Amino acid sequence: MVFDITVLGSSGGPLEGGTCAYLIKPTNISFEQILADKLDDAVLAVDFGSGLSRMCEIISSERYGDEDRVTMSALRNYNETLTIAGFTASGVSHTAKLGLQRVKGSPIQIAAQLQSLVKACLLTHPHIDHLSALVVNSASFGSASGKKIYGLEPTCQALEQYIFNDRIWPDLTSEDNGTFLSINRLQHTVPMQVNDIYKITPFTVKHGCVSPSEVYHSTSFLLENTSINRFLLVFGDFEADSGTSDANSLIWNHVASYIVQGQLKTVIIECSTANVPATQPLYGHMTPKTLFGELIRLNEIIMKHGHSKGIRGLHILITHVKDQPKLLDPRKVVLRQLLQLNEHHGLGAKFTVLLPGQTYSVQ
Amino acid sequence: MVFDITVLGSSGGPLEGGTCAYLIKPTNISFEQILADKLDDAVLAVDFGSGLSRMCEIISSERYGDEDRVTMSALRNYNETLTIAGFTASGVSHTAKLGLQRVKGSPIQIAAQLQSLVKACLLTHPHIDHLSALVVNSASFGSASGKKIYGLEPTCQALEQYIFNDRIWPDLTSEDNGTFLSINRLQHTVPMQVNDIYKITPFTVKHGCVSPSEVYHSTSFLLENTSINRFLLVFGDFEADSGTSDANSLIWNHVASYIVQGQLKTVIIECSTANVPATQPLYGHMTPKTLFGELIRLNEIIMKHGHSKGIRGLHILITHVKDQPKLLDPRKVVLRQLLQLNEHHGLGAKFTVLLPGQTYSVQ
Repeated sequence: MVFDITVLGSSGGPLEGGTCAYLIKPTNISFEQILADKLDDAVLAVDFGSGLSRMCEIISSERYGDEDRVTMSALRNYNETLTIAGFTASGVSHTAKLGLQRVKGSPIQIAAQLQSLVKACLLTHPHIDHLSALVVNSASFGSASGKKIYGLEPTCQALEQYIFNDRIWPDLTSEDNGTFLSINRLQHTVPMQVNDIYKITPFTVKHGCVSPSEVYHSTSFLLENTSINRFLLVFGDFEADSGTSDANSLIWNHVASYIVQGQLKTVIIECSTANVPATQPLYGHMTPKTLFGELIRLNEIIMKHGHSKGIRGLHILITHVKDQPKLLDPRKVVLRQLLQLNEHHGLGAKFTVLLPGQTYSVQ
Repeated sequence: MVFDITVLGSSGGPLEGGTCAYLIKPTNISFEQILADKLDDAVLAVDFGSGLSRMCEIISSERYGDEDRVTMSALRNYNETLTIAGFTASGVSHTAKLGLQRVKGSPIQIAAQLQSLVKACLLTHPHIDHLSALVVNSASFGSASGKKIYGLEPTCQALEQYIFNDRIWPDLTSEDNGTFLSINRLQHTVPMQVNDIYKITPFTVKHGCVSPSEVYHSTSFLLENTSINRFLLVFGDFEADSGTSDANSLIWNHVASYIVQGQLKTVIIECSTANVPATQPLYGHMTPKTLFGELIRLNEIIMKHGHSKGIRGLHILITHVKDQPKLLDPRKVVLRQLLQLNEHHGLGAKFTVLLPGQTYSVQ
């Protein structure tokens, strides 16, 4: 395995406190080693709808021997759901353990140490379900923490104008207040080496509208572990290409060769709701049907590269399923529809629904 | 008992997902009855740092027989803390049960039904730890939900300008988008009957600064159950009066006669940190020492009313203690210091530290 993805949250709302947030590290570096050696470039954070509190809960659950507590809290909101294994494709391993039993201190001390070593935080877009924990947690970062928030221009601008503005939250980005965190602008398609391990390339994607005439932008991040030239592609909320829009096609064309060469084997991607009638608006999100529209296109592009396997074996990790007041877990419905489409189109992709509190090891 | 206070969250951060939020209802109306009879004026929400997700967790914990789960999650972040009973004064009863075992449906269905019946939501101030769950939950309110958010002008303005602005969150307050919620302006000291049961009177309080020349405002709400003429006083984040500032004195003078007449027996009030050296800034918050400065003043005002008992027996429910990366639970330290000051000054007030997941019954 190459990448470990700790899912602090994967809900698309409306449940607070467990919305999207991932910690990503190389599989061959353990959390224990990260803490012991104070490795501050091993863990990348992508989105920040959950944070310190979820880390505390995962750590204390391991200590008290009920490791799957966070995950089960999310599953038992429904009367009918699947097991953790039932949501996970073969070829992906998962555990609720961070392996921190031997680390001394209280759960909140250990979580705060770990969070202090996550220096690079990528934000896909400024909707509150993707940044609320960053803001609430930021009070604990401390002066000159070296915490760097990375985003495209609209994300950075919204953070400055609407969040860290002394009204919604103290401006902890200012030197006067001690620079608890800094906001760093990325540019569409321009790679940036954020530390010794990771290079990131952001791509602008579409996610609904601000107004009838203005698109709302989100981001897809291509992460590269440069020490081993392996990639992970992580989408924020986004919608399918339509009409003349080719935001996603640009990404598929960019990554096709990495897939062909076996350097990119896993994609984290949103699928907010089960399929809906074509007349119903999607508010800038994906369904199994629209997601397959994209995957079929990616498959064709790879075929054109002369790689007849297409996306067979590619791991698609589903996130941002919206919780709903139903008996039946919508994650189960989304997974079933994805597997049906996969069968129907014969693509052979492998689908896993990401659950909070689990750390997934992927290639 | 007169008021039931369900604490969805009481942390002062930096842990996300469990920050301040209370559901307040008359003790003689059960949650089961509220759901059965669709009583939409029985429950008031004050602040919204936690919401639907915490309700789900409390409901599912009751169903699965580990009722204190939410509370224990908060306590076991520390190696040394107190029991739930140890944080609670005599004369206050507490339970983690909402009494909803017989209600049919999944936990998320029951929580959503209950939340849909909470029509009046009071916000003390627009810091993100007091409103993040409102925003994330709002997607589930539905069109024309009748959900009314009440706040003083600065709170309402910040919500409109910085949150429901189509950048941080879709503007779900607009008619075009279906008015998932409405924002309603209150005026300092002007009572408003928000439904058949409750009258609320907001008082502006000070909570640090926006800039050296501009005060940041928060709110204290005096709630009255008008059917029985009983009061509950709930403070948002605030600081002690100092110099010529008499924001808090105004409140103490207003409520003194209610305390004397036995109509107000409980105050929810913040105490963010243990005592700190006088040179250290408090960022608009209270410590045991500054809180006692206020309580001594209230005691004197009541004495002047010819009521020699002062605040003896008054229940002070402490909230918004800030979590810290320590072995020892800061709530335990705050409570110890409050009890020492209470002893020293001989006031005879009764202190309880509010814990998440518990419903407290008070007079």
